[in-house]
Amino acid sequence: MQPKHPSESLTTLTDLVLPSETNPLNNLFGGELLARMDRAASIAARRHSRRITVTASVNHVAFNRSIPLGSVVTIEAKISRSFKSSMEIFLDVWIEDRESGSKTKANEAIYTFVAVDETGRPVEVPPVIPETDLEQERFDAALRRKQLSLVLAGKMKPAEATELKALFI
Amino acid sequence: MQPKHPSESLTTLTDLVLPSETNPLNNLFGGELLARMDRAASIAARRHSRRITVTASVNHVAFNRSIPLGSVVTIEAKISRSFKSSMEIFLDVWIEDRESGSKTKANEAIYTFVAVDETGRPVEVPPVIPETDLEQERFDAALRRKQLSLVLAGKMKPAEATELKALFI
Amino acid sequence: MQPKHPSESLTTLTDLVLPSETNPLNNLFGGELLARMDRAASIAARRHSRRITVTASVNHVAFNRSIPLGSVVTIEAKISRSFKSSMEIFLDVWIEDRESGSKTKANEAIYTFVAVDETGRPVEVPPVIPETDLEQERFDAALRRKQLSLVLAGKMKPAEATELKALFI
Amino acid sequence: MQPKHPSESLTTLTDLVLPSETNPLNNLFGGELLARMDRAASIAARRHSRRITVTASVNHVAFNRSIPLGSVVTIEAKISRSFKSSMEIFLDVWIEDRESGSKTKANEAIYTFVAVDETGRPVEVPPVIPETDLEQERFDAALRRKQLSLVLAGKMKPAEATELKALFI
Amino acid sequence: MQPKHPSESLTTLTDLVLPSETNPLNNLFGGELLARMDRAASIAARRHSRRITVTASVNHVAFNRSIPLGSVVTIEAKISRSFKSSMEIFLDVWIEDRESGSKTKANEAIYTFVAVDETGRPVEVPPVIPETDLEQERFDAALRRKQLSLVLAGKMKPAEATELKALFI
Amino acid sequence: MQPKHPSESLTTLTDLVLPSETNPLNNLFGGELLARMDRAASIAARRHSRRITVTASVNHVAFNRSIPLGSVVTIEAKISRSFKSSMEIFLDVWIEDRESGSKTKANEAIYTFVAVDETGRPVEVPPVIPETDLEQERFDAALRRKQLSLVLAGKMKPAEATELKALFI
Repeated sequence: MQPKHPSESLTTLTDLVLPSETNPLNNLFGGELLARMDRAASIAARRHSRRITVTASVNHVAFNRSIPLGSVVTIEAKISRSFKSSMEIFLDVWIEDRESGSKTKANEAIYTFVAVDETGRPVEVPPVIPETDLEQERFDAALRRKQLSLVLAGKMKPAEATELKALFI
Repeated sequence: MQPKHPSESLTTLTDLVLPSETNPLNNLFGGELLARMDRAASIAARRHSRRITVTASVNHVAFNRSIPLGSVVTIEAKISRSFKSSMEIFLDVWIEDRESGSKTKANEAIYTFVAVDETGRPVEVPPVIPETDLEQERFDAALRRKQLSLVLAGKMKPAEATELKALFI
Repeated sequence: MQPKHPSESLTTLTDLVLPSETNPLNNLFGGELLARMDRAASIAARRHSRRITVTASVNHVAFNRSIPLGSVVTIEAKISRSFKSSMEIFLDVWIEDRESGSKTKANEAIYTFVAVDETGRPVEVPPVIPETDLEQERFDAALRRKQLSLVLAGKMKPAEATELKALFI
Repeated sequence: MQPKHPSESLTTLTDLVLPSETNPLNNLFGGELLARMDRAASIAARRHSRRITVTASVNHVAFNRSIPLGSVVTIEAKISRSFKSSMEIFLDVWIEDRESGSKTKANEAIYTFVAVDETGRPVEVPPVIPETDLEQERFDAALRRKQLSLVLAGKMKPAEATELKALFI
Repeated sequence: MQPKHPSESLTTLTDLVLPSETNPLNNLFGGELLARMDRAASIAARRHSRRITVTASVNHVAFNRSIPLGSVVTIEAKISRSFKSSMEIFLDVWIEDRESGSKTKANEAIYTFVAVDETGRPVEVPPVIPETDLEQERFDAALRRKQLSLVLAGKMKPAEATELKALFI
Repeated sequence: MQPKHPSESLTTLTDLVLPSETNPLNNLFGGELLARMDRAASIAARRHSRRITVTASVNHVAFNRSIPLGSVVTIEAKISRSFKSSMEIFLDVWIEDRESGSKTKANEAIYTFVAVDETGRPVEVPPVIPETDLEQERFDAALRRKQLSLVLAGKMKPAEATELKALFI
């Protein structure tokens, strides 16, 4: 299968924070951000695979900064690595200062999607060829995360998680 | 005031069409598209002016193609011209074929926003310098639309709408 | 086809402004108002045509007054003129003072709908016979707006837009 | 206090049933109808009292007919009777056949609201003078419902509920 | 049919009050609470009957306490009595103090559901055997409410409503 | 600080899947499930700490089974372990067969919350004392997850992550 670059799946979702999307502290409600990221990630997964895609897991989401009412929020989603039929999507979330226009990183997240055919059976997706340093770094780490996920789920023995093990020895 | 290029306000909002956003024919509900475009346009206006912005009018929205459930919809909003404190925002709406990835124009729309200070009083915004041919064409047409809007509102005599008049004589 | 009066399609949508429908300034969010007007206009178009109707365009919406949280908002939609299968719907938006009960005009808007059959093909709709002075005025102006829309879309030569041309000469 | 007629508080909320407002059987979700009626009733109560009004109770709502996706639904709310600071609001819900335009009664409901001042304390509202036969009938029945509500809440002895008692003896 | 205890249908819906669910006074919007209770009650009715269930009526909802933004709200729904194919569901609504954890009763409500087969025809449901004193009390009162509902709907003569009549004589 | 049992923070959120909450395949939309779990987890964190709590991260969410439209979904959230001011909340998601009433595990998830004071500064929370075997197992694993999270964030050296390291050696 013809490999693809992460840039080919780049998905940008820029939107406002309206009152209906806030929590009682007047910041963007965590659940709403999770839902927006899920939408952006599923589009990136679809762009990479040209297939129907379904959320398999949310592997890590760090809420580093709260996002106040009225903010302009940009979510950028891009594939970081694929494994047969599954795709790891990396998301960066930015908020933008109205007066200076400067952007600040607010959150990042990792979602995993699986490509399926019309009957719901997993189908193979193109491999990923990273281009930038950051893409390469995320590509490498994706394998460790994959092994970790298998170990935690009891589907791989720790001894076989070679990439991961190397971290600790 | 330092002029700006349309590309500096470019705002991209790529999102899915979920069942909660459809009409009874299973296409994106017109009102939901109008709302999404309003959000994207207000961000473009804010990026151009670095001010609080409020919707002044929706000047033209053509619904050329219906957008089916499950589509990936991309709204691109960019300033086309400014007039003292008002900004004309031009929006292009695209849908994307899942299998081929090709994009089709679904709609376009023109919204007008006004920049205001904290007390709600209009404030001046930067002029626009178009770069591409399409930006130049929309910049020129914006003046005719402005005159038209003033004529229709009874705030300009047709005889004074020189740009517009030229169309008809 | 049996003509109809505008009053036969009059649609009234009176509703509150709740917090989930506001923008960060605590006024009714523009996109929400556009969506409500689309709903009201589509009902008026259906009442005139007794057919399935789809939004064809939003021709003009002026946001003259912001509508604060907690307001009672009344949208009145009525057909102003029909052209074969298309219908121009005129909307007036009022807010109501709680203590005095007096109504103030907040916005007005013009939407165009097309009547279609089950297969999505345009079908003819009844002509409109205006009764009041305001209805007559809007009926007359609708032709100029129709020509204008065709001219701006490049589907009519300015020279043929006789009604519109008369405004400028 | 100057009495008012029920017609002075008449509130009409005509709206569509979109997919986001349905239950799994593709009919209007009961909870959504309850919410719309609450909005319409609170406006009618406000129009009668010219005060802030809060929902005190929902006394009876009969769901006689399901309302399919795509329907045009009209809710009419009108005060039926007032008691010091409380107001009984009677709601009639109609659906409309697209082809014939004929209206069918789908539901009716009775809500009670209380008028309060800025500190939340109950304030007196105008008495109601019914005009039509139906208004008179609902006005009379409101007293029985009021007594019933007090009896069921243990705030009135059955023996004192003279209007109600008369029904059974 | 095998009778069931109310505890077998107990349904607990604990959730937050977010800004998008409030009224302009920053309390939980009445219509939103009605919708949540409808959801909880329909689950309790389904648990009792193991059938498709549809809302038949809302018999009584008392809004005793307003529920402020940010509250934790617990709705408990349980069947109180069944009549052939209809089920009376009793709901208790509690709010919880963040610091002490103590619960306060905010509202209670009574909804009636009907069990239907795939074609929408009413089907029989299991009888209810109350266990606690409160369940017994609500079981007994349900018959009076049933008679009352029939009397008010003109489907039963007051003289035949023996349980109800006994209250007044 | 007085330790608490996981059962003291148990939060149950049973609700329906309505059409407005589905994806184009008619299953519960992933983002909506993430949002519901965030609500439930934040209530469990509040019950454990009796403090304001904010989402710190979503550590793992596995979407094992899709949840079809019309399902009854029960989310159970309970604290698994606390670390100074942070709390790991473990969520189990069940769906329930309408006819048999049997429950099937659909998903599980781990969220982390932080307790803060009114100024947003982290405050200490009670330790957790597990009671059941499953609670003990989750309590133990929480430390490994905590170390893992610190390692991945570059805030702990792998060599110091003793619990985690033990897995691999």
